[in-house]
Amino acid sequence: MTTTLLTNISTLVTNDPALGPTPLGLIEDAAVVIENDTIAWVGRSADAPAADTTHDANARAAIPGFVDSHSHLVFAGDRTQEFNARMSGQAYKAGGIRTTVAATRAATDAELGANVARYIGEALRQGTTTFETKSGYGLTVEDEARALRIAAEHTDEVTYLGAHIVAPEYADDPAAYVELVTGEMLDACAPYARWVDVFCEKGAFDGDQARAILLAGKAKGLIPRVHANQLSYGPGVQLAVELDAASADHCTHLTDADVDALASGNTVATLLPGAEFSTRAQWPDARRLLDAGVTVALSTDCNPGSSFTSSMPFCVALAVRDMGMTPDEAVWAATAGGAAALRRTDVGRIAPGARADLALLDAPSHVHLAYRPGVPLISDVWRQGIKCR
Amino acid sequence: MTTTLLTNISTLVTNDPALGPTPLGLIEDAAVVIENDTIAWVGRSADAPAADTTHDANARAAIPGFVDSHSHLVFAGDRTQEFNARMSGQAYKAGGIRTTVAATRAATDAELGANVARYIGEALRQGTTTFETKSGYGLTVEDEARALRIAAEHTDEVTYLGAHIVAPEYADDPAAYVELVTGEMLDACAPYARWVDVFCEKGAFDGDQARAILLAGKAKGLIPRVHANQLSYGPGVQLAVELDAASADHCTHLTDADVDALASGNTVATLLPGAEFSTRAQWPDARRLLDAGVTVALSTDCNPGSSFTSSMPFCVALAVRDMGMTPDEAVWAATAGGAAALRRTDVGRIAPGARADLALLDAPSHVHLAYRPGVPLISDVWRQGIKCR
Ligand SMILES: [Zn+2]
Ligand SMILES: [Zn+2]
Repeated sequence: MTTTLLTNISTLVTNDPALGPTPLGLIEDAAVVIENDTIAWVGRSADAPAADTTHDANARAAIPGFVDSHSHLVFAGDRTQEFNARMSGQAYKAGGIRTTVAATRAATDAELGANVARYIGEALRQGTTTFETKSGYGLTVEDEARALRIAAEHTDEVTYLGAHIVAPEYADDPAAYVELVTGEMLDACAPYARWVDVFCEKGAFDGDQARAILLAGKAKGLIPRVHANQLSYGPGVQLAVELDAASADHCTHLTDADVDALASGNTVATLLPGAEFSTRAQWPDARRLLDAGVTVALSTDCNPGSSFTSSMPFCVALAVRDMGMTPDEAVWAATAGGAAALRRTDVGRIAPGARADLALLDAPSHVHLAYRPGVPLISDVWRQGIKCR
Repeated sequence: MTTTLLTNISTLVTNDPALGPTPLGLIEDAAVVIENDTIAWVGRSADAPAADTTHDANARAAIPGFVDSHSHLVFAGDRTQEFNARMSGQAYKAGGIRTTVAATRAATDAELGANVARYIGEALRQGTTTFETKSGYGLTVEDEARALRIAAEHTDEVTYLGAHIVAPEYADDPAAYVELVTGEMLDACAPYARWVDVFCEKGAFDGDQARAILLAGKAKGLIPRVHANQLSYGPGVQLAVELDAASADHCTHLTDADVDALASGNTVATLLPGAEFSTRAQWPDARRLLDAGVTVALSTDCNPGSSFTSSMPFCVALAVRDMGMTPDEAVWAATAGGAAALRRTDVGRIAPGARADLALLDAPSHVHLAYRPGVPLISDVWRQGIKCR
């Protein structure tokens, strides 16, 4: 048994209301004891027990490691030209997701694995200690299964997204592609995945197709999550609630009935402001969801097409500036909210028994994540009790 | 004489159109030779001469170090509560700039110096190699002179901003404060400063006061720059052009006559998107200025009240997303544009004879500064030929 005492924390976000005021469970002048990979004790510095080693936080703030519950990291290639053309108002015949599908299929396992490791490392240095990632750039039985196998080498939170778009080979017969996704591809992918996801959107999969895909996944023991209501109104959000999906992701275009459904069910609304930032799209209205009592998570959607950021602090700053969240709400959503969206109770909080995942900020409070936008404030990171930065 | 060869640069931004295409003077597969503190050679890697030491850029992009031509770093205290209340829609009796004035006056020289060093260091790690900073939180003869003396220990680009707001002691007699700012305070401050600045805005200084302050500074050998048209339409921009100011900063509310004045004169329009971000204000229209032929710079406005970011990459990303700049234009504005706003020809470009200030990105092109928002992409920084990161 090894114990580490982190002491002299100016403001500690525990996300445990039993430990301090507000939903963030704030403790001032705080300390944390880590025992191996687990939080063993949380309280005031003055009351802290002895430990094998001590780390002085020097009056910096500490937060739970970010839980990024939505990313697309198993890809190859990059879409700089497409981004540049979009932001410059130039005509550009973009292949969109298909461009990445072609590059991903052509990549070796080693290339894809190195890419996943690179972006997880980049995110870890920015305080992300739990990472979900998806397939969806393979779109063949072999390429989807390969993506998930590689993802599973890097995280436990692996999502089968064979239904990202209809594979190019099936453009004239989407029904046959749904059959593949719910049959042979699912059989090959299910062993590597915890979640099943579908892009429910005009031009991707409609409500009936999405339902069939999610139900097939459920029958194989996968838990649904849904890319819902990103680009337009649609059936995705209500379908997600109906099927008790862990999360409905994007939620940019919502009717009152969609908000009511989310408020009445167990499905988290995961908002992905990086996508709206990088596509100059309308912001999701977090305030409306919070006021209705919906549980909100923030995530990066990290992918080379629509949101090539791995930065949870950046998402926090955008959520405060443009989505009506308070700094407290945004920090909660990026930590405890992400944990809820992954149905995890061991991460997203700093309390006895939780996994020892936490970040120190080069700032006296968590509010600085919004107050100091763009500044790399993450100074130290522990993941499962191991200091990674 | 010591020479260093940086080789294997995927894309080099030189900002010298004689060296490559577009205003960025791009060179692919590039190399740079640094001789002591100066750029000695720029070209293709294959053609590079030998040097004492070689640094492999590993196919990363290189850009000139950012030139941050507008910041307010000589301050004490922090305004987290005011920011939090503003973003949370709570009532909060904010003291605004006066809060920072009180904290700054109460601070020791050592505290102020440490603060300046801290933020310059933070910016340097994000690629900023030239930094302007201002007084303006002292507002007494002694406190303003002290601020500039401390600033001058850290940068050559020091701006006298006694006319930030009317000092609290002169609230009932602003004319007497203008007399102080143009008289005794100017005499005490001019030896430490290169520039004179004024906040020309309703509630601060009107056009006549601003003119008097800038002319008095000019008479002492200081070059004008103006906080102009930030919160409302006003005379600041046209006054700046009339007095041949180096820069009119903010430029958020512009009439056609303001744009015409900028286009016809030598005054750079310095845009400060961090301020609009952190106050939820209307974005300046960079596209309109660029289309009119105005030289545009980007800068952080780093200060604890309205824009507490030191990140030039963040400003680039905002300028592209929200101000109509292309990635190329934004990168130019954050480097060569800042140099123009400081009337410097030795920085903001990578060409023989320029100061050896450059940054490597953990990305293959400069476009990634906008394409990967929030991600700390600056991997290596040289300032005056010395590797700082
Ligand atoms: Zn997604
Ligand atoms: Zn300013």
